[in-house]
Formats: sequence, C-alpha cells, structure tokens
Amino acid sequence: MATNPEKATATENNDHLIRSEDSQHPANLIPELCKKFWYLGWVTGTGGGTSIRDDDLVYLAPSGVQKELMRPEDIYVLKLSEQVDPKQRIYVRAPAVYKPSQCTPLFIAAFTKRNASCCIHTHSQWAVLVTLLLEALPAPSNRVFEINNIEQIKGFGKGMGKVGNLGYHDTLRIPVIENTPFEEDLTESLEEAMEQWPDAYAVLVRRHGIYVWGDTVAKAKTQAESLDYLFQLAVEMKKLGLPWLSDIA
Amino acid sequence: MATNPEKATATENNDHLIRSEDSQHPANLIPELCKKFWYLGWVTGTGGGTSIRDDDLVYLAPSGVQKELMRPEDIYVLKLSEQVDPKQRIYVRAPAVYKPSQCTPLFIAAFTKRNASCCIHTHSQWAVLVTLLLEALPAPSNRVFEINNIEQIKGFGKGMGKVGNLGYHDTLRIPVIENTPFEEDLTESLEEAMEQWPDAYAVLVRRHGIYVWGDTVAKAKTQAESLDYLFQLAVEMKKLGLPWLSDIA
Amino acid sequence: MATNPEKATATENNDHLIRSEDSQHPANLIPELCKKFWYLGWVTGTGGGTSIRDDDLVYLAPSGVQKELMRPEDIYVLKLSEQVDPKQRIYVRAPAVYKPSQCTPLFIAAFTKRNASCCIHTHSQWAVLVTLLLEALPAPSNRVFEINNIEQIKGFGKGMGKVGNLGYHDTLRIPVIENTPFEEDLTESLEEAMEQWPDAYAVLVRRHGIYVWGDTVAKAKTQAESLDYLFQLAVEMKKLGLPWLSDIA
Amino acid sequence: MATNPEKATATENNDHLIRSEDSQHPANLIPELCKKFWYLGWVTGTGGGTSIRDDDLVYLAPSGVQKELMRPEDIYVLKLSEQVDPKQRIYVRAPAVYKPSQCTPLFIAAFTKRNASCCIHTHSQWAVLVTLLLEALPAPSNRVFEINNIEQIKGFGKGMGKVGNLGYHDTLRIPVIENTPFEEDLTESLEEAMEQWPDAYAVLVRRHGIYVWGDTVAKAKTQAESLDYLFQLAVEMKKLGLPWLSDIA
Repeated sequence: MATNPEKATATENNDHLIRSEDSQHPANLIPELCKKFWYLGWVTGTGGGTSIRDDDLVYLAPSGVQKELMRPEDIYVLKLSEQVDPKQRIYVRAPAVYKPSQCTPLFIAAFTKRNASCCIHTHSQWAVLVTLLLEALPAPSNRVFEINNIEQIKGFGKGMGKVGNLGYHDTLRIPVIENTPFEEDLTESLEEAMEQWPDAYAVLVRRHGIYVWGDTVAKAKTQAESLDYLFQLAVEMKKLGLPWLSDIA
Repeated sequence: MATNPEKATATENNDHLIRSEDSQHPANLIPELCKKFWYLGWVTGTGGGTSIRDDDLVYLAPSGVQKELMRPEDIYVLKLSEQVDPKQRIYVRAPAVYKPSQCTPLFIAAFTKRNASCCIHTHSQWAVLVTLLLEALPAPSNRVFEINNIEQIKGFGKGMGKVGNLGYHDTLRIPVIENTPFEEDLTESLEEAMEQWPDAYAVLVRRHGIYVWGDTVAKAKTQAESLDYLFQLAVEMKKLGLPWLSDIA
Repeated sequence: MATNPEKATATENNDHLIRSEDSQHPANLIPELCKKFWYLGWVTGTGGGTSIRDDDLVYLAPSGVQKELMRPEDIYVLKLSEQVDPKQRIYVRAPAVYKPSQCTPLFIAAFTKRNASCCIHTHSQWAVLVTLLLEALPAPSNRVFEINNIEQIKGFGKGMGKVGNLGYHDTLRIPVIENTPFEEDLTESLEEAMEQWPDAYAVLVRRHGIYVWGDTVAKAKTQAESLDYLFQLAVEMKKLGLPWLSDIA
Repeated sequence: MATNPEKATATENNDHLIRSEDSQHPANLIPELCKKFWYLGWVTGTGGGTSIRDDDLVYLAPSGVQKELMRPEDIYVLKLSEQVDPKQRIYVRAPAVYKPSQCTPLFIAAFTKRNASCCIHTHSQWAVLVTLLLEALPAPSNRVFEINNIEQIKGFGKGMGKVGNLGYHDTLRIPVIENTPFEEDLTESLEEAMEQWPDAYAVLVRRHGIYVWGDTVAKAKTQAESLDYLFQLAVEMKKLGLPWLSDIA
C-alpha cells in the first residue's frame, strides 16, 4: 500500500482489482474511454483523464500516460473511505511505472461532493476557447458559460438528486474557475463552484479544460459529449455573430 | 406486447424479429449506421436516431442509448398497421432496458406520409448553425434553407413519386420548423411541412437538427450525407461572405 | 459485352477481371481507396469516384454506390483501345446492379490525353470553396488557382514527361472549368484545360470538385492529398487575411 | 553498405535490423506512428516523417512513401558514429525501393545536438498557419511563436538536461526558421536555432511545418501532439480576436 503519491508503487497482491474479463469493469472501461477521447482530441499529449468509482473503489488513469495506449495495468486504485488526509493519498493498487495524476483530488471531489460514479477531465480546445471568450467579459459574466434554446441542452440532468433532464428552454449554466499552476490547487475552487452551482454536472477551468461527471459512467460520458458539442457550437456561433442566449419561449 | 410506451417491456417471444445473420437486416443495419453517425458527430451524447421500415415492421433505436455502442437487442419493433392512436403506441418487440424514443411519431410520419423506408434524425452542428443563420432573416425566408448551383445538390431525388434527381441548376429547398420542448410535439409541424413541401426529403428543426428520409436505406443515408455536406459548405460560405444562391444558368 | 452504358450488364465470363488475391489489383485497390476517401469527406453521398488504368484495361467505380461500402464486384471494366465512339462505351465487365459513372469520359481523358494510370474525382468542400472564392475575381484570374511558397507544393510533378517535382518557390497552378448540368458534358472543357495547362495534374470544376490524376496510383493519390491540403490551407488563409501568392525568393 | 544516398541500396545482410516481434522496436514503431500521424493530417501526401534513434542506430522513414502504408522493410538504418561527412551518408540498411529522406540531416541534428531519441517532422496546417500569421510581424517577433497561460504548455519539458516541465504561467517559445528550396539546406539554420533557443524541443519552419523531438519516443510524440494542439488553438484564437500572450500571474 503506497502512501506517498510521488512514489506510489505497485501492490502485487492487489492486481486482481484491475484484471477482469468484463468489458464494463472500470479497469477495462477507462482505457476504452480514454482511447475514444484521444481520437476526439480531448486528451491530447497525455492531457486530461478519466476516473470511475465503483462503490468505495476509485479507479484512476495515471499521470503522463498516452491516453490512446492505456492498459488496465496502468491504473491506480484507491479506497474512498480510506482517504482522510487529502495531501496523503493511499493507493490499494498502483502501476509499476507512472505517477498518480494531479487530477486525483478533483475526481475525488466529484465522487464525495456529488456522489458521481465517473468523472472525465478533458483539455478540449472548444472548452478552452469558450473560457477565453468569456474572460473578456466583466465579472460575474466571465465566470459562467450560459446557453439556452438548443436541443442538445436536454442531454443534461437537472441536478444531483433531481428527477429528469433540462428542458429545451432551460438555460444550461457551467461555472468557470480560474486555473492554477498546480492542478491539485484547483480542488478548493472546484469544490466552491460545486457549492455555488449545486445543479451543474461540470466545471470549466479557464485556459485549461473541463471536469464533467455523472451519476453513471454512461451519463458522465454522454454529458461530456453534449457539453463539447455545445462548446464547439458556441465558438462557431461567435464566429458567425450569433448570441448564445435568446428569448424564444 | 407493450401498449404504454413509457413502460414498454421486452416481448420475449418476438426476439426473433431482431436476430438475423444478414448484415442488411434492419436490426443489424441500425447499430451499424448509428455507429457511423456517431463518428460523424451527428448523434453525440445519445442525441438523434435512426429508424428503418421493412414493409409493415418499423425498427427503432431506443431513447438515451449511446449510439456508437448500440446492439440489435436494444431495438424496438412496431407494426405500422397496428398504430391507430398516435398517443398509444404498440410495440411487438421491446428491449429490457431503455424507453421508446420521442422521435418515434416523427419517424412514423416519414413512413406513412412519405412512404419512406428509412428516416435519420441528427443533431449535426452544421444543420443547427444553418437554422440559426436563417433565424435572423425576416419571414418567410427564415423558414426554408435554399442553395443552388452546387454539384452535390444532384444527390437528392426530385420528390416522392417523381423520377430522377435534382439538377445542378435546381434550387434545393429544405423547410425549417420551430423546435418544441417535447420532441413528440414536433409531429404536427413536421407533417405540415411535408404537406407544404411535398418534394422535400428532409425537414430542419430550428436549434435542434434535421430529419432526413429516403425511399431506401441507402437513399436516406446518402441524402443525409449530402445535406450535411451542403450545410457545412453553407456555414463556411457564410464565414467567407459567399451567398448561398447565385444566378448561374 | 455491354454496348449501351445505360443498360450495361454483367458479363459473367469476365468476372475474372475483378477477382484477385493481390491487394494491389485495381479491383481491390479502388474499394480501398474509395473507403479512405469517404472518411476524408471527399466522396460523401455517393459523390466522386476513382478509376485505375492497367495497360489497356480501365477499372471504374459505378454511379450511385456508397463509396465506403464498395466491393470488387461493383466495378466496371473497359478496354481503352475499344472505345471509338465516346457516346457508345463498351464494357468488358459490368456489375449486375448500378449504372456506369458519368465521370467515365473524364477519367478516360486523363488516361488518353495525359497517359495517367489513375484518376481521382472528389467533391471536397475545400476544392469547392476555393472555386467559389475565385469566382468573385475578374477573368482570367477566376479561372486558375495559384499558390506559391508553401512546402507542400513540392508534392507535385513538374508535368507529364518532365523529370522531377515542383520547387518550393514555384507557383502551383490548377485550372478551373465551369460546371455543367451533366457531368459528361465537362469532357470537352476538361480536355481544353489539359491542352491549355499541359503541366497540370488536376482540374478544378467550379462549384463541384476536382479531377486529379497521376502517372501511378500512388502519385494520383498523394497529389490528391497534397491538393486538398493546399485548398484547406488556402481557405484558412483567406479567413485570416493571408494572401495565396507571395514574393519570397 | 550504401555510401551515396541517392543510390542507397538494400544491404541484404542487415535486414535483421528491421525485423522484430517487439512492437516497441523502432522499425515497428515508426510505421505505427506514421499511420497515426497520417490520420491526424500531419504527413499528408508523403510529406513529413519520423526518425528514432536507438543508441548509435538511427531508423528513418524513406522519402516519398505513403505514410499510412509504411512497413518495417521500408526503413533506412544508419550508424550515428559513422556519419563523418554530412554530404555522404552511410546506411547500414536500406530498402530496395525509395530514396533516403531529405529530412535526414535535420533528424541527425536533433540526435547529435540535442541527444534526442526521436524526431518528428510534420506539415501540419496549423503549424504552417502560425508561421504565416507571424510572418506579417516585424522582426524579431516574426521569428518566434510565443504563447502563455494555457494548461497544455505544461506538456513540454523545461529543456535538455533540465528537470521537470514548463509551468502554466511560463511562456512557451518555439523559434521559426525560413524555408529553403532544398530541405537539406535547412540544417544550418535549424542548428543555429537550436543554439539560440537551447531549451526548445521544436523548431517551426516557415510555410513548411515543424520539427519536434524528445528525450524518448513518447516525449517526442506527446510534445508534437501538445504543440499541434497549441497551434490549432492559436489559429482559432486569432480568428476570434484573442491574443496569444496574456498578463495573468
């Protein structure tokens, strides 16, 4: 059991945690998702990552791995209930090479604060461009992406613990937090954004990318897809002089 | 046999309807097409869908499925001749999970009003952007997409029951209907657009996407491809200050 | 042997012409190339096509086929030496379904007038946009695409019968001909463009696409790729206010 | 052993150098990488290339090969220690067809001057567009691409022999050299740029593309990916009127 994330080493005995014939097992699903995301341009150059929680076990892609080439044996596993000191993470299974991802405390925030089952972090250029376009606006407009009256908005749940999805006329709001030099230092402002925007399933990070989560792996993935669709659409709308918000009722 | 679409359950006995070794069987073709469409960005985040009619049987993708991961066993089947009450659809085969798609009455409209064999619904961003660009125009210009003098226009039939395809100099016209909060509520205006534009093989839905159909599966698919090509071209033309209609004769 | 292209039927006995274990056989290569081109967006919606000449035999994709789904048995074969009347083409092998492609006389022009081994026709949107951008210019500037001082220009041969490729400072010139309602009617102006621009390996067709050929299949393909790269670059340069021609020496 | 690069012939006896069951062997890795790069649009139309150094042995893709179709047997091998005269390269293994790549001396520069293990050369349109956008600026601004405050910058090492990667607030600087008619003639200015910018892992070539290298194959590849991400982002930022450098601290 590794206690120092900088030197986390493989626990031979726990390799059974990442070996399964089931294609839906987190250790098989994370590489499959990461490969798909690489081809979408979301996790270019080892950026981004994906984590899945199965009850108390959290499966994590390591830092610095080529996402389209990931294998189950590259995956870290930790027990959510055993993480008492956020600075001192305990892994029950660690790969022989690689270091833990700096995204880890942010994924954990989605699991503990939002009861998510999966959290996806991308460096999508569309997400980054949206945060750059917002940056020029005065506060507080620069701290939230808003769009309404687009069908794809219906791809999002109304919020944790609420039944059903957003409607066509609803305004989808995704908060934007400022980037920090060390990814782990985003944790506090990510958690604050979660408090301030309890219904959001995602938080944009200025000049960096996005964290998206979901109640299930499928919801995290499809919400990530819908968001990226909306960000790309929003950038194209800006180029064409079309506003993100409209009055249709 | 399920009568309440919200609770449609699998009819064990009719699973033979979605099991076939033939790659051209609708239950095999729909997943293959949906996967292709996912990679084209047409059915992102479970959006969109595809339905095929084989004589009296209609095969439908369910609601909320990840389109690139669909399997034959996910498919709903209904008999066209047995649908008397549009609010009360009867399924002869239903998957164990999933709900019927809200697109169902729109697909049925294409089959009954246009005698189509296949209907494809996409959320293509190019389709959405075209409807947004049109929205700024005064009525009735904002209710129809028009383009002429582009070779790809020849990819469309002249209309139901007419022989041959559009010519290079013909103007392709695709009506635009306004989106509604519930997809099923589009049915009336879709059917009206079909009446008003009897030769169109597609209807754009503002801020939403498109419905495209065809006399055969291949024609529905290739017309959907040609339309998306033209929408993307039209958006690029707008960025470059080039008009969609020209006087070449 | 079929003499009326509109009713060209399969000649059972000559199916050996399209059956081969060799991946480099034209009947295997054309489907492979067409599939690749479909994914590049060059032959969307059954548009475009590819033809390969092997000595006196010409292999052709049929009209109206989904290019990513083509099979060797879909291919037409004709003997170049037997084509005396351009209006009355003679096929030595024809598929059971499908009609001959309207592109056939244009492919033949590349084989007879330019001694090409392969000719590729695409509906690439970048090619179409370049012809639209040129259209606004006064004649004769509107009839030729010109670009210089881009490394990718070195991907083109100096011209039929000439040794070596264009240099970095050379200006690549691709003539543009006007589109016609019937593709076969392009033949005369394509041949005129070949006469007027003897060194060009391609002809743009306004609002339609491009014909590119090469001394070998590989050269036709890589020249088609290089051209599409340059057209996309040219469109992006236009958006960014960058000129296609510059004075670097 | 071939001494004249223009006539380099296969050395039968040394084919063992390019035959291996190990997927990580350079002769297997170069074709795999090149195929991936072709699909990214980096090595269109036989442009670009990739070279890997394993101790004293250098593996090189040949000139004029279709990069997505490369095979191990297409690869050149030379010994770094045996190259005394840069005009007279000695190959210990050469393919039967093909000529050596004109990129060879540039790859060698990365290996000898920067101790790189892999060097990637692409014709990426985003790289070319960035050099074109810079060209309009007065010297010396036109000779370096600069961007800061974008998370993806952290994908680059601080420089040869330095520990760790760039930080979020650091400015990534990539020098730009002018293109020459013959690629080999870039060698001197590439080496000068390496001297002047000792921490850069890449050099842009105006109107041509980029050379990117890394301490390992994985680092060369992921740095190439991160750079291309930043170039595409920079072009989109320019279209949207967003500056590449900002004052965030």
